[in-house]
Amino acid sequence: MEHFISINQLSSDKIMQLLDSASSFQKNSPTFSKQIFAANLFFEPSTRTKMSFIVAQKKLGLEILDFQADFSSLLKGESLYDTVKTFESIGADVAVIRHEADDWITELSTGINIPIINAGAGKAEHPTQCMLDLLTLYQEFGSFENVKVVIVGDIIHSRVAKSNALALQRLGAKVYLSAAPGYEDNSLDFPYVTIDEAVKLCDALMLLRIQHERHDTQYKTMDYLENYGLTKQRENAMRNHAIILHPAPINRGVEIEDELVECSRSRIFKQMSNGVYVRMAILNHVLKEWGISK
Amino acid sequence: MEHFISINQLSSDKIMQLLDSASSFQKNSPTFSKQIFAANLFFEPSTRTKMSFIVAQKKLGLEILDFQADFSSLLKGESLYDTVKTFESIGADVAVIRHEADDWITELSTGINIPIINAGAGKAEHPTQCMLDLLTLYQEFGSFENVKVVIVGDIIHSRVAKSNALALQRLGAKVYLSAAPGYEDNSLDFPYVTIDEAVKLCDALMLLRIQHERHDTQYKTMDYLENYGLTKQRENAMRNHAIILHPAPINRGVEIEDELVECSRSRIFKQMSNGVYVRMAILNHVLKEWGISK
Amino acid sequence: MEHFISINQLSSDKIMQLLDSASSFQKNSPTFSKQIFAANLFFEPSTRTKMSFIVAQKKLGLEILDFQADFSSLLKGESLYDTVKTFESIGADVAVIRHEADDWITELSTGINIPIINAGAGKAEHPTQCMLDLLTLYQEFGSFENVKVVIVGDIIHSRVAKSNALALQRLGAKVYLSAAPGYEDNSLDFPYVTIDEAVKLCDALMLLRIQHERHDTQYKTMDYLENYGLTKQRENAMRNHAIILHPAPINRGVEIEDELVECSRSRIFKQMSNGVYVRMAILNHVLKEWGISK
Repeated sequence: MEHFISINQLSSDKIMQLLDSASSFQKNSPTFSKQIFAANLFFEPSTRTKMSFIVAQKKLGLEILDFQADFSSLLKGESLYDTVKTFESIGADVAVIRHEADDWITELSTGINIPIINAGAGKAEHPTQCMLDLLTLYQEFGSFENVKVVIVGDIIHSRVAKSNALALQRLGAKVYLSAAPGYEDNSLDFPYVTIDEAVKLCDALMLLRIQHERHDTQYKTMDYLENYGLTKQRENAMRNHAIILHPAPINRGVEIEDELVECSRSRIFKQMSNGVYVRMAILNHVLKEWGISK
Repeated sequence: MEHFISINQLSSDKIMQLLDSASSFQKNSPTFSKQIFAANLFFEPSTRTKMSFIVAQKKLGLEILDFQADFSSLLKGESLYDTVKTFESIGADVAVIRHEADDWITELSTGINIPIINAGAGKAEHPTQCMLDLLTLYQEFGSFENVKVVIVGDIIHSRVAKSNALALQRLGAKVYLSAAPGYEDNSLDFPYVTIDEAVKLCDALMLLRIQHERHDTQYKTMDYLENYGLTKQRENAMRNHAIILHPAPINRGVEIEDELVECSRSRIFKQMSNGVYVRMAILNHVLKEWGISK
Repeated sequence: MEHFISINQLSSDKIMQLLDSASSFQKNSPTFSKQIFAANLFFEPSTRTKMSFIVAQKKLGLEILDFQADFSSLLKGESLYDTVKTFESIGADVAVIRHEADDWITELSTGINIPIINAGAGKAEHPTQCMLDLLTLYQEFGSFENVKVVIVGDIIHSRVAKSNALALQRLGAKVYLSAAPGYEDNSLDFPYVTIDEAVKLCDALMLLRIQHERHDTQYKTMDYLENYGLTKQRENAMRNHAIILHPAPINRGVEIEDELVECSRSRIFKQMSNGVYVRMAILNHVLKEWGISK
């Protein structure tokens, strides 16, 4: 019994099994015979991830405890551990946590007796986002074998670039990176290509959100799009079957030209839909593994 | 299939049909055979309207996605369109939206594939408030024909005055306005009367909330009540059967004397109860029209 | 039919009856045959109490209206009375209220037609916390007769010290107080002992949260723990069967040494679990007494 913290902890078989569950939950949701409580503890702003978890939980028939981090005992200086332990004590069966610290899970590694699902850990990890990216690629190509994926954009500040790259490689994909000067992460052992090379070679272009405000080197919005982003001209150069992904929220006109957001190659909103199904699969998996549901 | 944005888009027949549905839902709620998700996107403070929608949704057995506008991706600068599209993507079947812009609906006019219900658009429109005012009058008088309604107060800043006046006129009522100097809206083609004339002639006195802070001309609270508000003395001059409405929240002692808020003529809290039933009727109508429920 | 405001309003028999209900609800929850709405109106930060009520309500199958005090018509200056009346009007069957004023209940004493449960009134009262403390002691000792309880810490700023002391005395317990200079409440007619005397004589040590920020006299954290708090050395001096209680949130290292929070004597997280069951019992009691459920 483990917490669901990192994509690295999962075997390739387990990943594939979760993707298959997610696909099947698109049609039918499992149901549980007893009342199960899920606590959502979001210490950072989030629409997409939090709401996606909530839809997943409601589709599974779970009861939801929605913690408002901005209006709570945190104001009284309570630790993350004590907050989670409180939810365990009042009856939470599983906790979904997002926190701005990269390593918040360390504080929870002993003493908590309910499963924890990582919904975002600082810049470090965001495994449910990774899983929904994988599901979207899997639905498209039926396999990861030799699928060419280029991860493009603010690599250094992304909490999905690293785990996506490693997971995709493990599953058989060919992974490339593309970043403006200053946006690279040199700790990652994948080849860098320019955006113009990227659009020509890829089966899937995985754009990341640009976080200009976190950088010393500032690019002007238009310059960024022209030099490093996905313009319509570049989109024209993509192979027929190639698709576009983006974790959203999107900076329209920065990493991608406005009109491409809903173009026929775009799987951006499909990724969001898929987010619900992978989260159902992960919740279901964790509840089963911990013996909470049968 | 249309969004539910303005009272003007509804025929008189449709209005009457919704009022009849609302009355019947007071006794029995319809039930739906599948899980339906309603997203409530409130970008402005609201207790009454939001909670009223929530009760309506829960009585209909809907699942609710409650968006916290102050703690979300809005902080990351996401557009209204992308926010709504996100909710559509994760499974919302209907979106209830309040926003401070008068014309937010324009941004959503193409590309959104779920019905939208207007829960307040800046100073422009608030059709569910209008519907609950209509229901309260209809329950009282059994018809709108020749019912004399005076809309009193901060006409220029009200998002209900205009649509209420037009809808009431269309349904056969006689509409008058009454406002302190500076509070009139001269774009409305209805006769103005003084508050002393108003109380004597009306069947229903529809008070509006005064928003002193939005005006250049400031009235002192007591002066306002004495000269333009509903004092006990004026209430005494009302006809026996005449009633008082107010959309709330009430400035007690400003537009109405404190003790009159729950007097026998007051339908103020009944309006709130009716708000739930008209919202049930509107949700039910929209879900049926869009083929979401059967 | 009364609101549930103070532990003083309950006879000893009624208290024991509620404790027995709470114990039985630990195994089985009662169910109601109709949709019942509970409104939670929290005007002060609270994780524990609010979430505990929510779990209790969900276990009872109630529908929950969750009021966000920071994002609401309060911004428009609405009174507490009008806010509660609004919830009554839209269909709330019971209201659970926490507010920073000691005497908020006075404003609601007439005109409100639904039961109100006090979830914390300023520094004055917190009867559901008192009930969960009582349940924890009752489970431990099977009776209150001659159980020696020392209430330790920031007596003057506690909203539970006074009501707990009086209720325990009424039920047969022997109550003592222990406080650092400046933290006493001399209006309470119970003997004061030092912390060193307390640990030796007590069956239960009921620690309170220290609120340094509310005091003129400031203690340094380490000084406070050494001189007035529960250190491991003092814990060693406790009788074999003696237990530790704390309402939480805990200032680890201030009123209690960090490692003692989850020691074998600690009932701190059990208190939280018990909070759910006493709140179920109180909600069930109030709904029955008011004829809302059968």
